Amino acid sequence: MPSNIISSNIPDIVIGRLPIYLRALTRLAQEGREVTSSHELGQRLGISSAQIRKDLSHFGGFGKQGTGYQIGYLIDQLKQVLKIDREWEVALIGAGDLGHAVANYRGFSDRGFRICCVLDSDPQKIGHHVGKHVVQPFADLEKVIAEYDIKVAMIAVPAQNAQEVADQLIKAGVRAMLNYAPISLNVPQGVYVQYIDPVVHLQRMTYYLD
Amino acid sequence: MPSNIISSNIPDIVIGRLPIYLRALTRLAQEGREVTSSHELGQRLGISSAQIRKDLSHFGGFGKQGTGYQIGYLIDQLKQVLKIDREWEVALIGAGDLGHAVANYRGFSDRGFRICCVLDSDPQKIGHHVGKHVVQPFADLEKVIAEYDIKVAMIAVPAQNAQEVADQLIKAGVRAMLNYAPISLNVPQGVYVQYIDPVVHLQRMTYYLD
Repeated sequence: MPSNIISSNIPDIVIGRLPIYLRALTRLAQEGREVTSSHELGQRLGISSAQIRKDLSHFGGFGKQGTGYQIGYLIDQLKQVLKIDREWEVALIGAGDLGHAVANYRGFSDRGFRICCVLDSDPQKIGHHVGKHVVQPFADLEKVIAEYDIKVAMIAVPAQNAQEVADQLIKAGVRAMLNYAPISLNVPQGVYVQYIDPVVHLQRMTYYLD
Repeated sequence: MPSNIISSNIPDIVIGRLPIYLRALTRLAQEGREVTSSHELGQRLGISSAQIRKDLSHFGGFGKQGTGYQIGYLIDQLKQVLKIDREWEVALIGAGDLGHAVANYRGFSDRGFRICCVLDSDPQKIGHHVGKHVVQPFADLEKVIAEYDIKVAMIAVPAQNAQEVADQLIKAGVRAMLNYAPISLNVPQGVYVQYIDPVVHLQRMTYYLD
């Protein structure tokens, strides 16, 4: 395995496409396929094959002209690049309807993440079960984050509490946050935020409707 | 207002970025700003300013070299392009934890979408409230879709039911579906699907972690 596979200065927009490629490749593998092409991937994803070849070329040596991509090898390489050849412990903040739904979501397994704890500040929720987890007090955040060495969190609290939760998470050592609340978070350099925003997806589709 | 603003043959990947631009512009407007540049937008979004200028040039005449973009005008134009200068009625399928969370999500307002009905096949849920909606039987789908002339739906049901729900929605006339279930849907040409997949967002961030 080449140790220089992770090239620096890859544009973030390219990084953003790698999980999409990985998801498509995983589906192909589940269909029993062993080899694919940038052309086929492009057709499945609505991305040009030239773009796909260019994106993957940043990391070197994933495929050879004319012979296509070995799906299993490419999956392994992408997992390594995205650092999900390990399992990340994830803290889930918020034990309301959304917290329950996220805790019970079955799409995390085998994709690099495991929810290890659920925290909430509501005394009515603390001590109750969310999925297989017992809700812990948000006041214990620093202790819990340190115990599991957590770097990744999901924020499933009301919009008006999301920034404060983010601030506390960052203080406790979290560096990547997935925010479900419909609010933009301010974070310092070196901390990463992504948003679950259903409206962006809806708007992308209405363009095509009459 | 030019009637030729909606150019055809715009790559889907460009269409996918327009809602992101719209969200960033709306935030700038909320901050009281009136003018921005492709440079500023690019910095906020992690997209090159050249890419932004190229994307917006597909639709013509949004900005002039050197004077920047008029934020209010650009917002109006993007809303028109994405066809959210109207309000789309949306059917929500599934009244479990996730359905409750989606129904109570406060990010839809003023962004082109209004949940008009919640349907579920579970007799335990039918007739109960989800947000301000009374859950209707999924068996009444065709009637409800026709009544509100619904083209857009959100699927918040367990993975094993999602394809069947999608099939019924399409049969009833729905043409755009946002799927929260961790499963890929098969749909005919002319029907659009987008996925809420939290793992894609998490994987995009772990690339940057140690």
